Amino acid sequence: MEIITGGVTAAKGFLAAATAAGIKYKDRMDMAMIVSEVPAVTAGTFTTNVVQAAPVKWDKKIVAEEDCARAVVINAGIANACTGAEGMEYCQKTAEAVEKHLQIPVKQVLTASTGVIGMQLPMEKLTWGVETMAKELAHSKESGHQAACAILTTDTKSKEAAVTFEVDGKTVTIGGMCKGSGMIHPNMCTMLSFVTTDLAISKELLQEALKSDIPDTYNMISVDGDTSTNDTVLLLANGMAGNQKITKKDENYQKFVKALNYVNTTLSKKMAGDGEGATALFETKVIHADTKEHAKILAKSVICSSLTKAAIYGHDANWGRILCALGYAGVNFDPEAIELFFQSKSGQIQIYKNGVATDYNEAEATKILSDEEVTVLVDMKMGEKEATAWGCDLTYDYVKINADYRS
Amino acid sequence: MEIITGGVTAAKGFLAAATAAGIKYKDRMDMAMIVSEVPAVTAGTFTTNVVQAAPVKWDKKIVAEEDCARAVVINAGIANACTGAEGMEYCQKTAEAVEKHLQIPVKQVLTASTGVIGMQLPMEKLTWGVETMAKELAHSKESGHQAACAILTTDTKSKEAAVTFEVDGKTVTIGGMCKGSGMIHPNMCTMLSFVTTDLAISKELLQEALKSDIPDTYNMISVDGDTSTNDTVLLLANGMAGNQKITKKDENYQKFVKALNYVNTTLSKKMAGDGEGATALFETKVIHADTKEHAKILAKSVICSSLTKAAIYGHDANWGRILCALGYAGVNFDPEAIELFFQSKSGQIQIYKNGVATDYNEAEATKILSDEEVTVLVDMKMGEKEATAWGCDLTYDYVKINADYRS
Repeated sequence: MEIITGGVTAAKGFLAAATAAGIKYKDRMDMAMIVSEVPAVTAGTFTTNVVQAAPVKWDKKIVAEEDCARAVVINAGIANACTGAEGMEYCQKTAEAVEKHLQIPVKQVLTASTGVIGMQLPMEKLTWGVETMAKELAHSKESGHQAACAILTTDTKSKEAAVTFEVDGKTVTIGGMCKGSGMIHPNMCTMLSFVTTDLAISKELLQEALKSDIPDTYNMISVDGDTSTNDTVLLLANGMAGNQKITKKDENYQKFVKALNYVNTTLSKKMAGDGEGATALFETKVIHADTKEHAKILAKSVICSSLTKAAIYGHDANWGRILCALGYAGVNFDPEAIELFFQSKSGQIQIYKNGVATDYNEAEATKILSDEEVTVLVDMKMGEKEATAWGCDLTYDYVKINADYRS
Repeated sequence: MEIITGGVTAAKGFLAAATAAGIKYKDRMDMAMIVSEVPAVTAGTFTTNVVQAAPVKWDKKIVAEEDCARAVVINAGIANACTGAEGMEYCQKTAEAVEKHLQIPVKQVLTASTGVIGMQLPMEKLTWGVETMAKELAHSKESGHQAACAILTTDTKSKEAAVTFEVDGKTVTIGGMCKGSGMIHPNMCTMLSFVTTDLAISKELLQEALKSDIPDTYNMISVDGDTSTNDTVLLLANGMAGNQKITKKDENYQKFVKALNYVNTTLSKKMAGDGEGATALFETKVIHADTKEHAKILAKSVICSSLTKAAIYGHDANWGRILCALGYAGVNFDPEAIELFFQSKSGQIQIYKNGVATDYNEAEATKILSDEEVTVLVDMKMGEKEATAWGCDLTYDYVKINADYRS
């Protein structure tokens, strides 16, 4: 597997475009479109929130009922959630605009929205955007990057990842882009993530590969504990790599699963590290847990703790809050047996052992906690299972961004 | 039932004192003691965190094994959690100091601590504090109030409540004090709360009354989702009101339960409204739910949502976040059927109906959301059950307080 630059247009036959449709933002691109030259089998996972946005309902139906999809239209600024029948009509009209300008059937057009809940979309701007982008679609690194920029809301960085690997002597590419900064606490998937590949694979195995990877990637991040109404991960595979179609869980399938995991993990970490107001990516790795499920619950409890997140912002080695967050996670363990470490590129120190603080150097701890990527390593001393979760620090800017998001 | 001023010394035969022992704070009272003139039957509920502070372990044993208790010694500044065997020894030595100076048996002395986790207590200062307070114990409103001030940490206000009611023609009093501002997400009880009464009642019924009231009071508040290692509610009943001892669930027991609920609810709301950095008490009332459990889960999900809390701080009628928080609570409902209202002393407006926003006046919503106590009313339209939860807004000051709490 080779890591390459690029995103959603890295794989063969995937085109993208972006435009400034003025949906809510006035001075930036806010619509993106991804198109496959040929029909692509499509897998998707969606929010578990009872309140589901119109595009989530729209996409779920297509992923469940259609063999293939060819286009995805995304807008930022307005989430098209809690918009009633009108919201569903917008999905329909968007798809009709794609059919009109690109001759792609309505039922092969996926939609995704992100932004304010409860506001209605300006339909004319959306259809204008589709028409404009239809003329500008390109299979280039630049067009993919522009699409990655156009889908952002409070994100500060675009988020792309891509890899290549070999199947049957053919080079297969997977590339993806995502957005997500606030209301990030995915359950079954995360905000918006779009992954494309030119691999030839059956729809069943594509869905299975995605479904089995989500629990270790998108579902292991949290910015604020709020599971969005719009969470969507779409994975399109158009077969243009020319490999023999994967239809069983052979060695080639495993190669794909591994490469997909890399792309999804990278995109997930980018979202966590760019959480609203964040100054640091906050990783918690739990090792030697008795079960995988317990490792996950413990790791997520730490990265979700507001007090721990605020301490990370303050570069404060307040390990008591970490122990507290492990303690209320709902998993039983012996607090006297476990060990805690802080890690970053600046080094590693042990903080807690035998039920009390080690005699660690506070200045050294502060130095480690001042890096842009900080890891808490928790050794449960109970078994062989492990899990990693990703979050970010809690800062003044998180409050600032969210105290008056709508204005 | 009559609401009166006063706190932990309101009931007959309860004395209190406070002192500045210099445990961690340099310029304020940081120790308090409550003493009953006669042995009091005692009930308690404690944190469900796997990591439990030494005083929690100490008190649990006394409440479970002893018939009565007479004293409670409390310190602020250091939590005596994650302090190993040394931490337990401090509880023992504190109780021995009480025995020495007040001739109260070690096994009738309860202890409670709040503050930084993982730091060891300065034992000599603690025993000095006990000796000093033993000389100053008084049955007065002032001594109770000083105790309520001495137990605070990041709290900005002392928290007391008291009521009287009649049993057998005798006046019975219940009074209490509590502290709690951060790491507040009680499960089975909250930070530290001490309630005293002169009612004569059996230990079994006292424990039952407390246990059945906790789920509707302390367990319905949250400041930051972090369940503390030290959560403790102690309820002492010394029988000095002179009523015939309550030994069955008769009319008198019901009177007591009602009065206790008032005291616990009042103390709980005071904690939520004084959450770290808070500018407002944020109440969510869920009505017409199908089950009580669902009503509670939904109400707590809203007051725990960081995004909603930040919006309350910004006086921003961002109802989409409320709907989102209801949606991920884990309870099934029809988002198109429910209705949302904002309420405060300034009025009430309906915000959401039939799956979309109502045509509400934004200025009116902002006015309501600018009050010091703000309520979201959620009508589930499913049944007859209801629940109320209390939290606070999420502010810059929460981050400030917690980014460098230890310094």
